[in-house]
Amino acid sequence: MKIHATSLPNIPWEDRPEGCSDVMWRYSKNPIIRRDQAKDSNSIFNSAVVPFKDGFAGVFRVDDRQRRMNIRRGFSNDGIHWKIDDKPIEFIQETQDEIESEYKYDPRVVFIDDRYWITWCNGYHGPTIGVGYTFDFEKFYQIENAFLPYNRNGVLFPRKINGKYAMLSRPSDKGHTPFGDIFYSESPDMVHWGVHRFVMAAGYTPWQSLKIGAGPVPIETDEGWLLIYHGVLLSCNGYVYSFGAALLDLDKPWKVIKRSKSYLLSPQTLYECVGDVPNVVFPVAALVDADTGRLAVYYGGADTVVALAFGYVHEIIDWLKCQPPTTEVAGL
Amino acid sequence: MKIHATSLPNIPWEDRPEGCSDVMWRYSKNPIIRRDQAKDSNSIFNSAVVPFKDGFAGVFRVDDRQRRMNIRRGFSNDGIHWKIDDKPIEFIQETQDEIESEYKYDPRVVFIDDRYWITWCNGYHGPTIGVGYTFDFEKFYQIENAFLPYNRNGVLFPRKINGKYAMLSRPSDKGHTPFGDIFYSESPDMVHWGVHRFVMAAGYTPWQSLKIGAGPVPIETDEGWLLIYHGVLLSCNGYVYSFGAALLDLDKPWKVIKRSKSYLLSPQTLYECVGDVPNVVFPVAALVDADTGRLAVYYGGADTVVALAFGYVHEIIDWLKCQPPTTEVAGL
Amino acid sequence: MKIHATSLPNIPWEDRPEGCSDVMWRYSKNPIIRRDQAKDSNSIFNSAVVPFKDGFAGVFRVDDRQRRMNIRRGFSNDGIHWKIDDKPIEFIQETQDEIESEYKYDPRVVFIDDRYWITWCNGYHGPTIGVGYTFDFEKFYQIENAFLPYNRNGVLFPRKINGKYAMLSRPSDKGHTPFGDIFYSESPDMVHWGVHRFVMAAGYTPWQSLKIGAGPVPIETDEGWLLIYHGVLLSCNGYVYSFGAALLDLDKPWKVIKRSKSYLLSPQTLYECVGDVPNVVFPVAALVDADTGRLAVYYGGADTVVALAFGYVHEIIDWLKCQPPTTEVAGL
Amino acid sequence: MKIHATSLPNIPWEDRPEGCSDVMWRYSKNPIIRRDQAKDSNSIFNSAVVPFKDGFAGVFRVDDRQRRMNIRRGFSNDGIHWKIDDKPIEFIQETQDEIESEYKYDPRVVFIDDRYWITWCNGYHGPTIGVGYTFDFEKFYQIENAFLPYNRNGVLFPRKINGKYAMLSRPSDKGHTPFGDIFYSESPDMVHWGVHRFVMAAGYTPWQSLKIGAGPVPIETDEGWLLIYHGVLLSCNGYVYSFGAALLDLDKPWKVIKRSKSYLLSPQTLYECVGDVPNVVFPVAALVDADTGRLAVYYGGADTVVALAFGYVHEIIDWLKCQPPTTEVAGL
Amino acid sequence: MKIHATSLPNIPWEDRPEGCSDVMWRYSKNPIIRRDQAKDSNSIFNSAVVPFKDGFAGVFRVDDRQRRMNIRRGFSNDGIHWKIDDKPIEFIQETQDEIESEYKYDPRVVFIDDRYWITWCNGYHGPTIGVGYTFDFEKFYQIENAFLPYNRNGVLFPRKINGKYAMLSRPSDKGHTPFGDIFYSESPDMVHWGVHRFVMAAGYTPWQSLKIGAGPVPIETDEGWLLIYHGVLLSCNGYVYSFGAALLDLDKPWKVIKRSKSYLLSPQTLYECVGDVPNVVFPVAALVDADTGRLAVYYGGADTVVALAFGYVHEIIDWLKCQPPTTEVAGL
Amino acid sequence: MKIHATSLPNIPWEDRPEGCSDVMWRYSKNPIIRRDQAKDSNSIFNSAVVPFKDGFAGVFRVDDRQRRMNIRRGFSNDGIHWKIDDKPIEFIQETQDEIESEYKYDPRVVFIDDRYWITWCNGYHGPTIGVGYTFDFEKFYQIENAFLPYNRNGVLFPRKINGKYAMLSRPSDKGHTPFGDIFYSESPDMVHWGVHRFVMAAGYTPWQSLKIGAGPVPIETDEGWLLIYHGVLLSCNGYVYSFGAALLDLDKPWKVIKRSKSYLLSPQTLYECVGDVPNVVFPVAALVDADTGRLAVYYGGADTVVALAFGYVHEIIDWLKCQPPTTEVAGL
Repeated sequence: MKIHATSLPNIPWEDRPEGCSDVMWRYSKNPIIRRDQAKDSNSIFNSAVVPFKDGFAGVFRVDDRQRRMNIRRGFSNDGIHWKIDDKPIEFIQETQDEIESEYKYDPRVVFIDDRYWITWCNGYHGPTIGVGYTFDFEKFYQIENAFLPYNRNGVLFPRKINGKYAMLSRPSDKGHTPFGDIFYSESPDMVHWGVHRFVMAAGYTPWQSLKIGAGPVPIETDEGWLLIYHGVLLSCNGYVYSFGAALLDLDKPWKVIKRSKSYLLSPQTLYECVGDVPNVVFPVAALVDADTGRLAVYYGGADTVVALAFGYVHEIIDWLKCQPPTTEVAGL
Repeated sequence: MKIHATSLPNIPWEDRPEGCSDVMWRYSKNPIIRRDQAKDSNSIFNSAVVPFKDGFAGVFRVDDRQRRMNIRRGFSNDGIHWKIDDKPIEFIQETQDEIESEYKYDPRVVFIDDRYWITWCNGYHGPTIGVGYTFDFEKFYQIENAFLPYNRNGVLFPRKINGKYAMLSRPSDKGHTPFGDIFYSESPDMVHWGVHRFVMAAGYTPWQSLKIGAGPVPIETDEGWLLIYHGVLLSCNGYVYSFGAALLDLDKPWKVIKRSKSYLLSPQTLYECVGDVPNVVFPVAALVDADTGRLAVYYGGADTVVALAFGYVHEIIDWLKCQPPTTEVAGL
Repeated sequence: MKIHATSLPNIPWEDRPEGCSDVMWRYSKNPIIRRDQAKDSNSIFNSAVVPFKDGFAGVFRVDDRQRRMNIRRGFSNDGIHWKIDDKPIEFIQETQDEIESEYKYDPRVVFIDDRYWITWCNGYHGPTIGVGYTFDFEKFYQIENAFLPYNRNGVLFPRKINGKYAMLSRPSDKGHTPFGDIFYSESPDMVHWGVHRFVMAAGYTPWQSLKIGAGPVPIETDEGWLLIYHGVLLSCNGYVYSFGAALLDLDKPWKVIKRSKSYLLSPQTLYECVGDVPNVVFPVAALVDADTGRLAVYYGGADTVVALAFGYVHEIIDWLKCQPPTTEVAGL
Repeated sequence: MKIHATSLPNIPWEDRPEGCSDVMWRYSKNPIIRRDQAKDSNSIFNSAVVPFKDGFAGVFRVDDRQRRMNIRRGFSNDGIHWKIDDKPIEFIQETQDEIESEYKYDPRVVFIDDRYWITWCNGYHGPTIGVGYTFDFEKFYQIENAFLPYNRNGVLFPRKINGKYAMLSRPSDKGHTPFGDIFYSESPDMVHWGVHRFVMAAGYTPWQSLKIGAGPVPIETDEGWLLIYHGVLLSCNGYVYSFGAALLDLDKPWKVIKRSKSYLLSPQTLYECVGDVPNVVFPVAALVDADTGRLAVYYGGADTVVALAFGYVHEIIDWLKCQPPTTEVAGL
Repeated sequence: MKIHATSLPNIPWEDRPEGCSDVMWRYSKNPIIRRDQAKDSNSIFNSAVVPFKDGFAGVFRVDDRQRRMNIRRGFSNDGIHWKIDDKPIEFIQETQDEIESEYKYDPRVVFIDDRYWITWCNGYHGPTIGVGYTFDFEKFYQIENAFLPYNRNGVLFPRKINGKYAMLSRPSDKGHTPFGDIFYSESPDMVHWGVHRFVMAAGYTPWQSLKIGAGPVPIETDEGWLLIYHGVLLSCNGYVYSFGAALLDLDKPWKVIKRSKSYLLSPQTLYECVGDVPNVVFPVAALVDADTGRLAVYYGGADTVVALAFGYVHEIIDWLKCQPPTTEVAGL
Repeated sequence: MKIHATSLPNIPWEDRPEGCSDVMWRYSKNPIIRRDQAKDSNSIFNSAVVPFKDGFAGVFRVDDRQRRMNIRRGFSNDGIHWKIDDKPIEFIQETQDEIESEYKYDPRVVFIDDRYWITWCNGYHGPTIGVGYTFDFEKFYQIENAFLPYNRNGVLFPRKINGKYAMLSRPSDKGHTPFGDIFYSESPDMVHWGVHRFVMAAGYTPWQSLKIGAGPVPIETDEGWLLIYHGVLLSCNGYVYSFGAALLDLDKPWKVIKRSKSYLLSPQTLYECVGDVPNVVFPVAALVDADTGRLAVYYGGADTVVALAFGYVHEIIDWLKCQPPTTEVAGL
């Protein structure tokens, strides 16, 4: 199996603990980013990172002490120790009319062709998918929202597919949406979106029974696109966010080849179970080293901190290949 | 004031009743279409008509006795007496992949350039905007859904604006959506949609306080686009649907010039207050005669029957011009 | 039994229909006020009347075609045919600061000492009890709201009790309140209110199981205060409003002497079952002739029209005296 | 096809109206029982009748003017004109301990072996299935509730099946239950019930998408048990009750042979659409004449009155046989 | 006072901590079973144990990493250290037809006559009470569900009462049931159940105000049946599960002799307050030594782990006897 | 800036931790009162303290092990170590009639003129504001409730304003109220209340978006009244309680001079995030030393324990003065 990505020898890493047989495991020094690590921050979580120059750059969800949601820039040499800006990113408006942005959260970042594209949940008369880009992590440009409200978890693929930009997203409502399936859309120009396709539904197994949403930018392999995604279970005390994986067809990514019945990680540690929203692990970014298959997933813990989990891409794909055929499964 | 439409001397018509000073009035022989007028029909309502050849053609919402929602074709000589097909329209799929259509309802029809475009609420993993066309009301073609779910009340403008197709719609949720604002979107090709703009919100005055949605295809005048739209008030016994009007900027239709504080029509007769959903008037289509300014609005009554209301375009616009400036109004 | 009220020989009246054995009966020409009887009115209902000069004056709930709720003045010679103003009453503000009044509805009127007091549901950051007065039905003055939000159905007693003004009211929430008990409060000056007492709860018998509220101004008799009040039952299709009666202690009106297990009137005619809110009879005012005991109750039908029901005070009190002792009843 | 029932030449009857092609049709003099036809009655509906001596006997749901729900006895010579008792039935308690009965409603009656069995919705710390019997419609005996709360629509089969009494029921919750499937249970002694089997679910077609429940006692034919059942659709303004039919296996009645996709009757007349609960037709009893196949279904209209609909058993079964095989249908 | 149970000298035990005056106290090495102690387990909690041969056997609720709920077998020498199977128990079907079991959870186990009976919450078109047995903890047999859906917390008494099997249960709805009272039912054959009796309601004191349910198998004493039961309080952040005790009449166990106003244990430690469902202590099994009165209660913590609490039966009964008479208490 | 309060050299105190730049900081030995520190207590939180003689007196919310809510007296020498009574305070009734008090919680205490006034949330047919006083913390007297239900968080100002007693409160509903604004009322006699004024609304910034309520008694300064208040954010897992501050006009305290956009403290420690209600900091009392400006705020943690936070009044006011003008802010 081949991973279509670059070498990343400096990927953050820690070997699987002895005696552990889990497919993915937590970094022993979690959380890597504390809630108050940036100026005036209430919490830092659900954040995106990419390799940049000799190190790493990132776009971080930082809720301030008003509990306003916004995104800030950060840099790191090792992917673990981060310097985060004191202020939210200010975008230069490239839109026809000024687009209001009541809030921004849960960013994703991906390099396509010549620039880093950023998507996020953008407040425009309700949540929808905001889109921007940067060439250098110095100047940031914002263009049209991809969709009408109400939408969340917009995640771009790392290259054009069949000559079009491609995005996963999760249509939502205005509140703490109690439903959510993943859809696929494409665009010739990053402004006009169409050809919307249903990808997969909540409800497959209990941990993902209420709603699901794409996590990090999908990882291209010979076997298909590896998608890490979150799933939500409704307990009598609220939402529980775990994450698992799926394998999507390379050319028609709305076709699901395999989907995990079990989760890869569920909230079990204090920094995942105690915080502003108890019982949340929420994956948003992934680094991968094509040479070794090492995978580092950045995820939010309890909507309060950033943590890291590790695994090997080929092991996750092998694990997915052992899952039953999805064609036999109701709800797909 | 000039109406940018064709002459329609055979428009259905009945003069304003004596002593009546309302801006719009009901046809005295309402309802024009009974609930059981088509084969196996439970109800016929929320339907769209256009001039066609020497008479009229229409696309009708017919719920059958399973209470399944679908749309059928019909023809009429006078716009009042209709012959409706025994079966739903079968669309020839022009989409990249076959689009499922779990249900279709609340159609709109408009002639642009060379064909009749049809939009409707289309069941595709939830309600969204289905799009199709016909040249002759014999063969019907279905293309891509305009948007991701969840959306309803997608209404096209009758010509391109600034070189783009233009559509109003109302982002929704999956159920009996308890909210709803009108947005504007544009498209170079009727498939890819973007540049989404907020138009106006529910909540302006009580009859439209819960949600609003575009009704018939907007009517072009020198003063702007005349939009008839429905609004919903939530009583302790459920939703009450009335309808009013707004005037939109010709070139930037997301700019509201005037908006009616009062409704034009609210459910008051037995055929509007008693039926499958009590207390509903729901406008879907409008015929207009450019010469006289006569306007005939087709609307659903109690989600059960089709009824007609009449008025003069210039009187409605005069009435709108007496409304206070919307720039002074909260919630716009 | 003696009624402490004035003679009113010109009270609207119609004898009990032959064969009818009900305690109260409907006027055969109901509704007496149609929904569109006032300028720009959507509906006229839940309104209050008093004897005035040789005839009658009234304060009417008139919802306009924006569905805004407000109150207007009206006059009548016979209590049946009414002339209602084109505009809402404009109150001269007697308050320390200007009190906003986002809306006004469900007025009651009562003459005490030297003037006519008006109470209504007043919109001030939510519903509460507005208070005003007039000497002549020409100039109207508004003073402080009686209570904090959220409250409805504030009804004054027709004289001071133990030297204090006395009012019944029903604490509420901000929406279509799904609960509601009646309370009693007193005031030295019509501005400051205290000594709040619980009177009676919803839930006694099914027709009044969800919530209850005082109707017309209580009628003083030797046996106690006769209170007509509405009660609400929750069906799977919403609220059903009926009305019954209770007898309250003369000196301590929060003590309930008798309470009706059955309703006196429930929605059964078309003008009560079909309208803006189906299935509502809502009593708001009562005229009484002390000489004959004749009682005329003005009530709203389906939140759309005004109707009349008749009875004899002594018959209603006899009927109440046959009710079981309330001391044996749970929930009181 | 043979109907396993007795001759009933005096069955109430009216031929199919000319031009009508519906499988069932309404009696032209509906409603046959008005809301106020019994002493102190608010409404009379959802009631059960059986042939008795030369005429008919019945158990009627009569809500009184407190809106309390209870059941009363009635007799009729022709099945159309009824004399209903002034008071609820008083049951002699045959239970080990006295069973409280906070309320009784929606009765069914069936003759098995030597007596008339009555089941109803019985208030015992929530709704459950009450069971009683009478030999002569003079003395009535009540035995143990069949099930734990919460249950409604308990309907006995008219003979033992495989040596056991057999009952359909619909497990519920404590309120206006927003779900509901039909189950089958059996008993050696009418007291202890077990061997519970799932029969069919809500959701098959839209008119029955929210919940379903058995109606009259099933009718035995060579082809299987003919079951008339109600189904509920949730509109934005509440529940809409229609009714359809199914054919159940003679020996294993939890096996559904055929099920109607369309309804047989839905609320369309004023006495079905206007009343205490708008938009309800609720079938509870059926008379059948084995010689002619004539069927008379008694149903409640708008939770307010009793009405009659007619049809032929063999026509209904023929219609059911044209339905698609239920094995192909999701949700069965 | 005499306990009608066997000697159990090897009961797990730890003396009351010094300075502690609570009626029951926690084991200092809690939790005794970790969430990941079985193969592929997400959590192990709400589990039942019995003395077996020289040690103990148990039936454990093990949710796997798909968050599917099922039950597994386990053995222990000391009642504290457990070896739990890798797979769920497979039951041999003894039912007339195959009973589906979509899920199993919250098992109870009790020895009656010649075998170990197991009851659990069984998924059969909704939650109901599944019933099975084993003679040897090697082969397990499943028989008919005891009740129709929807039910939970079915707990058998440890012997026949008046010649009938006896069970407590809690009628429920389909979701996170926001109500719940305890009922009693009896059966001649473990298949057919009837003679249903109301035992006690939620609402007595605040910790048990939302719903209640039986915990371990009741313990027989001279004073009555000692029942440990859970109660739920609704905070603004969800359900809080505590547990208390009641004393039921020996011959008519639906008669409550005493009921605890305070809880015995409420969630206060990290393993009770942090986990998949925060703030849960849920008692499911009890071991008792008749000689010393020692009691060991197994309970789930935070729906994640198994913990132990200790006490003396006679102390709990003395404590219950100090409670006020329940006849004086509303809601019983 | 001058604080209008007395010297309090023995105020509990701990200097700002090194490196901390927060406006307020936690006491390092928190919580100062454990949940089980009083006899039969389940939890002790949301409590009020005042200087008294050489030390301090307090009124404590103590929920017992039935989870009943009531208030108890306590004394302390240093404000940190407290001796709390075994029983709730018994009030001598000074009311016209006996006022029931189903429960009492969340007390505030303030000295005015000659006595200590106590207000609390009082159960009288729903929550409202109870009022009492004591001269000596030995005898306690209860007078009339200040308002009708439903209300919470009634907080007196420490002196008359314009010759009237003055109180802040938060109108509520009967349950876990999902809304809440602060209002101001005044009284000539502590019994009759009127002249109600809207002060400020929930929704200003996210941490206070769902509801807000006054905390400790306002502190008088030259700049205005310093009000510490709590605000609630609704996450998908429930309510999160933080606290901030506002500055109110000295003579017209319903005029907000400044309001904090950020919170001063939000739940971040284990004793704030884990307990009977996770994620709660709820401020109820404040001690202030006029000489140094030292401020000690007593707040409840997780509805389970009492904790202390420190700050300087002048620093908080400086921080408030840096906030933007509230006149520019929507929702005030």
